[in-house]
Amino acid sequence: MACLNKLSLVILSVLVLTASLASATQDPELKQCRHQCKHQRGFEEEQRQQCEQRCEEYIREKKHREREEEGYSRRSRESREEEEEKEESGERIEQNNPYLFEAEHFDTSVRTEEGRVHILKKFTERSKLLKGIENYRVGFLEANPHAFVAPVHFDADVIFFVASGRPTVTLLREEKRETFNLERGDVVHIPAGTPAYIVNRDEREKLFIVNLINPVYLPGEFESFHGPGGEDPESFYKAFSWKVLKAAFKRDRDEIERLFGQQKRGGITKASREQVEELSRHAEGGGGGGPIWPFKGETKGPFNLFRKHPVSSNRYGSLFEANTEDCKDLEDLNLMISFANITKGAMIAPNYNSKATKMSFVVDGEGWFEMACPHTPSEQGRQRGGGSAWQGEKSGKKFKRITGRLRRGMVFVVPAGHPVTAIASQNTNLQILCFEVNAKGNTRYPLAGRKNIVNNMDNVAKELAFGVPAREVERIFKSQNEEFFFPGPTQQEEGGHRAYM
Amino acid sequence: MACLNKLSLVILSVLVLTASLASATQDPELKQCRHQCKHQRGFEEEQRQQCEQRCEEYIREKKHREREEEGYSRRSRESREEEEEKEESGERIEQNNPYLFEAEHFDTSVRTEEGRVHILKKFTERSKLLKGIENYRVGFLEANPHAFVAPVHFDADVIFFVASGRPTVTLLREEKRETFNLERGDVVHIPAGTPAYIVNRDEREKLFIVNLINPVYLPGEFESFHGPGGEDPESFYKAFSWKVLKAAFKRDRDEIERLFGQQKRGGITKASREQVEELSRHAEGGGGGGPIWPFKGETKGPFNLFRKHPVSSNRYGSLFEANTEDCKDLEDLNLMISFANITKGAMIAPNYNSKATKMSFVVDGEGWFEMACPHTPSEQGRQRGGGSAWQGEKSGKKFKRITGRLRRGMVFVVPAGHPVTAIASQNTNLQILCFEVNAKGNTRYPLAGRKNIVNNMDNVAKELAFGVPAREVERIFKSQNEEFFFPGPTQQEEGGHRAYM
Amino acid sequence: MACLNKLSLVILSVLVLTASLASATQDPELKQCRHQCKHQRGFEEEQRQQCEQRCEEYIREKKHREREEEGYSRRSRESREEEEEKEESGERIEQNNPYLFEAEHFDTSVRTEEGRVHILKKFTERSKLLKGIENYRVGFLEANPHAFVAPVHFDADVIFFVASGRPTVTLLREEKRETFNLERGDVVHIPAGTPAYIVNRDEREKLFIVNLINPVYLPGEFESFHGPGGEDPESFYKAFSWKVLKAAFKRDRDEIERLFGQQKRGGITKASREQVEELSRHAEGGGGGGPIWPFKGETKGPFNLFRKHPVSSNRYGSLFEANTEDCKDLEDLNLMISFANITKGAMIAPNYNSKATKMSFVVDGEGWFEMACPHTPSEQGRQRGGGSAWQGEKSGKKFKRITGRLRRGMVFVVPAGHPVTAIASQNTNLQILCFEVNAKGNTRYPLAGRKNIVNNMDNVAKELAFGVPAREVERIFKSQNEEFFFPGPTQQEEGGHRAYM
Repeated sequence: MACLNKLSLVILSVLVLTASLASATQDPELKQCRHQCKHQRGFEEEQRQQCEQRCEEYIREKKHREREEEGYSRRSRESREEEEEKEESGERIEQNNPYLFEAEHFDTSVRTEEGRVHILKKFTERSKLLKGIENYRVGFLEANPHAFVAPVHFDADVIFFVASGRPTVTLLREEKRETFNLERGDVVHIPAGTPAYIVNRDEREKLFIVNLINPVYLPGEFESFHGPGGEDPESFYKAFSWKVLKAAFKRDRDEIERLFGQQKRGGITKASREQVEELSRHAEGGGGGGPIWPFKGETKGPFNLFRKHPVSSNRYGSLFEANTEDCKDLEDLNLMISFANITKGAMIAPNYNSKATKMSFVVDGEGWFEMACPHTPSEQGRQRGGGSAWQGEKSGKKFKRITGRLRRGMVFVVPAGHPVTAIASQNTNLQILCFEVNAKGNTRYPLAGRKNIVNNMDNVAKELAFGVPAREVERIFKSQNEEFFFPGPTQQEEGGHRAYM
Repeated sequence: MACLNKLSLVILSVLVLTASLASATQDPELKQCRHQCKHQRGFEEEQRQQCEQRCEEYIREKKHREREEEGYSRRSRESREEEEEKEESGERIEQNNPYLFEAEHFDTSVRTEEGRVHILKKFTERSKLLKGIENYRVGFLEANPHAFVAPVHFDADVIFFVASGRPTVTLLREEKRETFNLERGDVVHIPAGTPAYIVNRDEREKLFIVNLINPVYLPGEFESFHGPGGEDPESFYKAFSWKVLKAAFKRDRDEIERLFGQQKRGGITKASREQVEELSRHAEGGGGGGPIWPFKGETKGPFNLFRKHPVSSNRYGSLFEANTEDCKDLEDLNLMISFANITKGAMIAPNYNSKATKMSFVVDGEGWFEMACPHTPSEQGRQRGGGSAWQGEKSGKKFKRITGRLRRGMVFVVPAGHPVTAIASQNTNLQILCFEVNAKGNTRYPLAGRKNIVNNMDNVAKELAFGVPAREVERIFKSQNEEFFFPGPTQQEEGGHRAYM
Repeated sequence: MACLNKLSLVILSVLVLTASLASATQDPELKQCRHQCKHQRGFEEEQRQQCEQRCEEYIREKKHREREEEGYSRRSRESREEEEEKEESGERIEQNNPYLFEAEHFDTSVRTEEGRVHILKKFTERSKLLKGIENYRVGFLEANPHAFVAPVHFDADVIFFVASGRPTVTLLREEKRETFNLERGDVVHIPAGTPAYIVNRDEREKLFIVNLINPVYLPGEFESFHGPGGEDPESFYKAFSWKVLKAAFKRDRDEIERLFGQQKRGGITKASREQVEELSRHAEGGGGGGPIWPFKGETKGPFNLFRKHPVSSNRYGSLFEANTEDCKDLEDLNLMISFANITKGAMIAPNYNSKATKMSFVVDGEGWFEMACPHTPSEQGRQRGGGSAWQGEKSGKKFKRITGRLRRGMVFVVPAGHPVTAIASQNTNLQILCFEVNAKGNTRYPLAGRKNIVNNMDNVAKELAFGVPAREVERIFKSQNEEFFFPGPTQQEEGGHRAYM
């Protein structure tokens, strides 16, 4: 552990140095970073390689960031034009968007050669407007083929969604061991405190698991506890005194010390082909192996979201959903999980959830979302005062458009009641996984398309609400015949805003 | 919207101006306000009328406020005398009362010619002692005969109690529409996110609905969302970009723009007699129409509080109650609703709720309440420190009397465990609607009258607790034979304090 | 009340005076304190005696505190040596321990000649790391033989565990009275708002009751309400105005005033033998009287923890447990209660709770505990920032050892997921009562002994996790054959650290 920590320190100082070179181009920076790695005293060959790898990674990320920023300013130029157009038409866009999260909002909590774990910061650190989901965290695990994720337990309930790779997950529940061979689309609940380990049994595909984390003790905060382990990941056994460990294990200090000093390779390591086979051999089969899920209420353990019939599907997209009525685990967690695959160029009907608040993770593709937000800009960064509502003429309440470009790895939050839509780019399908909390009794209300709420109103209510004859309301609200996925705005509709796609 | 906003601004500046005239009597102030309305450039006739109306309303409110303040100082003189009397007798009164709310503690969230919605500010803005109910809001809706309240949904569960008028309420639940013709005493739950609209089908009586609001996302804060609407109430559809709206509706921008620009009359408008008839024609009938409610556990939808047998009734008053065992909706919300009609000159037995905290809304009449409060004065405005309890001699714990005059529209809060009583004036019945949260398993303990807790004690416990022979305890606690409503203090008892009645 | 308050003031000033005498030895201090009592004007004989008693008590406590501090500095010298030893071996100990509570962390809320009630301060006053249990309070009641605890209700659910004495507890539930003759090991739930009184029917043994308090209104804060009572404990009836009391009781003011002025002896008084007999005569019998508990789900009312078969027992200790599946009351409170009796010189297996957080009260004996804590020292006193977790190499996450000596009356908290062990001294059994909140679905995972989690892993996982062949892992993890209680570290193991035992 000590030497790894030293390594980290060296890399940090190297990076700080190189980052401070004002006009550094790619080569000089990387060159200097590597140079420092090479001439660091006390480094063995392996450490030197790691150091250099870290240099390259840093440079890659930096470049990516620069491109991002460039992209932003390009987009910002464009959106300025767009905004001008919109100001004419009286529209409002919210630039400062506390509901959208990118790479920079994640913390790295594990990073080894074989994989990494990134966790989104606490929602309430971003904005008081996210207080409603303060006890949730979102994250992901990415690991190489045949990577092994060391045994660990959390003081949190954790939901895994397998987006790619073929993980074998083992849970240690009291005296019995449960092993599941999972596939893409499988959802598994790791109850708080349950030790679990994972191996990616795929020898080609990377493992990508999206997590929802629901701490059981401190609001919005959780910790990992490695029992099996050594110096890295450090075992919590090492916190006990020697006299206690000797009595607990009935072994000598030397032996114990040796055992808990061996593992030094980090929380995600590489398993051999034989080890992978051994670990996955006795598995019970995941949610993808069984009959079409679910048998209402019976399900315990993993299930596959894609084995269920989609709740909505046409050639513009498909929506898969598992809710509190499908599965005991989801009921206990008051959670709904849905997956929308929006065909390229298509869109989801504007809609809102009646009770549930949605944390959406972009699993693949590109596009953008738009959300109507009733809060005033001044409220967005700080505690709101009175928060009065149902505000008509007096306060001049306005809905602002919250919008943001979406791509793989991004997260956006949609609070209960807020109308939202998502649109896939012209080039790729947009795939979004949603964790919807406070899900019990939730209804998804479509705001356009065949079953929209306005069609369902009395004619008189339509007239009174819109101030025009009912048939004029219907002309607008009954043209779209599709149900939940529509053809999206076409190229020509967007005018000069191709970049936005 | 723009012109209405301008109107608001003008009115505001007019009011500020007139309000600053130091020694203004009624006429000059009103005169100047009207004058400004008349000479405001760009106002059409209708706007001018609205402006003047607003002037009058402002003056009315100002006068009311002045009368109030006068009343306060008169009462304050009186209560000073009263206090002196009480100091002799060792009593303590708490003047600063965070449990009582008047008109000034409400925010206006809608106000049109046809009606208004007032919502009490967040409880925790008033005092940390109200933290236990921080996720609730109380409000009311008042509207003219034949007024129409535009379709809206909230990110909150909302309970309606009909105090007067005959509303027809329509809920849009997914694909079905539910319409109820309600009467006085009906209670209906609008689940979070459910679009609803209301028309007062009575052509003479004003509609008065008391609300309890339980936000589902942000603690103690909620928002209203108008889908159907135009410029006022503004539709949230207007927050989406044109390209999205065009794709969602499959219509041209011009058409869409026209539709969402028409409605400019505000969230509460007037319906014609024909429209009212049409809106109420297909109603299922409210809670007042069915057989005597409830059939235990079955009820879903509205019910009428007065159709149930009162849980307590004599010639001094009646108590109606619906609790978590009566109704699935109430169970889900962990809520109890009760209505006390205290005969003029009578009182409720001092009592406390074992678990539930009570938000009481004075629906009609006048009177006052008294509550025993264990908190020290210094705690009332700020966060309490240790909050130690069960305090005997060491800390010299005292109960303070929290008291306040009650009249229509006032709210008072009674925390769990706190002994309280309410007394009707000699002139009118006092009618109080109570929302009691954390209601599951609650017991109401009477502190005087036939079933009081002291009567239920062992004789030995009476002796030890009071330090006198049991029969002396009983002489006090067994004289009152009534059960929950008693004859109140009589005129002569009060001495010079008639005004307090 | 007035004179008692005066008494308190005098005692306070006397104590302040005497405490300020720099080099005071026992005699002079006590002497001066007594002198002041004697010469205080206006004191009657009884008050003078109380005053002197208080002096002696103060001196006793002061001496105790001094011995404690001495003990600390001795221990601190020792632990410095120990630390040095540990630094060599790379161990970390956390000196500042927010999880451990001693006498100084309790507030006295009642103290009379016959008994006292001490309540632990709010957990969040100590550390933000205790936020997960902020709505719980722990306390205890100690009273003499034949002491009577006056009728009282709380705005909190209260759990009583009888550690010694034989209390007769009476609950007033609406119109019926329930009386239970309890014994050591009995657990009873006093639901929020339920008036209760207690008499210790044992004529020799002191009553000692440990409390868990779960406020129903303000988070982590509760109050006591005495109805029956007079000046001390003060009755809340006295907060109502005379005109209200006269109407409520239909009696004259004089009579009422007399009744509520009699009781002046404080919340815990002495009952005569006849009164004790009368109070306990009609009891239903406690949890100890019935057949072996529980009949699953049926139990309502008291039960005896020791009547149940221990969930784990050998010659090194016994563990008794009642959980949410055993008892409706515990299920409603989401609570588990357990009692560990660790044989002298023995230890509990290191273990953790998967979901539940444990508040442990040392009922008897001495020893110490060790806990592995993942939080960094800087977090311990203040709000944590991001609280990222699952931290591997990058953040250099370390587990610290939280440790503390245990003796009767101390409390320690073990959050969910945290590995912990407790060790009895060589001289006495260590008896610990645990309230475990968030208990539903909790599993206790042993980290050593026959059923430890590592034994349950695949061999391949053992190899990958520890970086050594599986048989080497097993050599350590399979030597200890006992299940939950082990022989503890022996005298010789500890070297020079006897004092720590």
